[in-house]
Amino acid sequence: MHRLFHFPLSPFCRKVRLSLAEKRIEVELVEERYWEQDADFLRRNPAGKVPVLRMGGQNLSESSAICEYLEELHPETPLLPRSPEGRYEVRRLVGWFDDKFFREVTSKLLYERVNKKVMGQGYPDSANVKAGARAIKFHLDYMAWLLDQRRWLAGDSMSLADFAAAAHLSCLDYISDVDWNRSETVKDWYAKIKSRPAFRSILADQVPGFLPPPHYADLDF
Amino acid sequence: MHRLFHFPLSPFCRKVRLSLAEKRIEVELVEERYWEQDADFLRRNPAGKVPVLRMGGQNLSESSAICEYLEELHPETPLLPRSPEGRYEVRRLVGWFDDKFFREVTSKLLYERVNKKVMGQGYPDSANVKAGARAIKFHLDYMAWLLDQRRWLAGDSMSLADFAAAAHLSCLDYISDVDWNRSETVKDWYAKIKSRPAFRSILADQVPGFLPPPHYADLDF
Repeated sequence: MHRLFHFPLSPFCRKVRLSLAEKRIEVELVEERYWEQDADFLRRNPAGKVPVLRMGGQNLSESSAICEYLEELHPETPLLPRSPEGRYEVRRLVGWFDDKFFREVTSKLLYERVNKKVMGQGYPDSANVKAGARAIKFHLDYMAWLLDQRRWLAGDSMSLADFAAAAHLSCLDYISDVDWNRSETVKDWYAKIKSRPAFRSILADQVPGFLPPPHYADLDF
Repeated sequence: MHRLFHFPLSPFCRKVRLSLAEKRIEVELVEERYWEQDADFLRRNPAGKVPVLRMGGQNLSESSAICEYLEELHPETPLLPRSPEGRYEVRRLVGWFDDKFFREVTSKLLYERVNKKVMGQGYPDSANVKAGARAIKFHLDYMAWLLDQRRWLAGDSMSLADFAAAAHLSCLDYISDVDWNRSETVKDWYAKIKSRPAFRSILADQVPGFLPPPHYADLDF
């Protein structure tokens, strides 16, 4: 069976897990303490990051390259639309979440609160946490603005853009950092995506020392 | 004519400029002081970053999404191979340079030495500069290792991976931060890509207050 080397609260791994599950590609999940830079792991991916997907004798890395590859091998459940304009918009938003949202929000909240502790790198920096808590509001409003015009984030079909966004938000929801009361539209979108079978394994994640809030796995939150 | 809002020493803008030039799409270059977050600019791209490509009434952002879009509109000069495996390898390496190389090298050398001064954010942090100078050696060795097995970085044809790498290296070369004596293989690769017509506009770049070394625009360096 294919194997995915991952860390449960990594949005980049979650994006790949959602793609794999939506395309019904079964994988064995292997938790990887990637920050320890174990020699075996570095052999699999010299970039020293997760996710790494072991598939057909190859070790695949870089979450967006993996998702595009899965899309080309398994186009029957499309996560990219057909028109160049539609595909551009999906990729722009994947970039938005994996770069801008990550830098402004995920790295400031999740990395400060969880990764630092797990990696033994000390306590959260309160200036970062405050900046992250401020920035997430702007991002939720931007999502609400997009979703006022479209059924899904990048257009009328669910796409990699929704998975990228849901991957970040679900990690932050695990540590209660998403205010779902801010926008009914965004909450409805998340409820839709959360109820997909692909989301099940993500809702079952557990990180020792961090207990998710009761609503985390609740489809009717 | 199309317009590209850019900053001369931005590797992300240079990657898009190389793609446009290789595909013979003419654009007018407009220098954008994006860090000043001018209201007009933010309307064009709420992410507040360069490049922004104004094309057919649309404002396109996120350099990788733009390059994929140009590829789909103009496949006649391909910068992505045809096989899913080949395309995966190009995208993996684009990710390698735009994420890992950027974080470990470009942000530590170029941002400390140039962007901070241009943006009025003070002096270079010497610990960062040292870390960047150390890390670039590892990356040049990795490139040499790839190029020992392949004509171009991702395979037998020139691709977006070469443009991503050359975009970062050319910015660092402008501030004399690339030791071309480290690897004959990498130097030969760079000489090949530097001599392409697509590279001309990049070799003509000037940033006030920073004079490039004499070899910067020399094809026989």
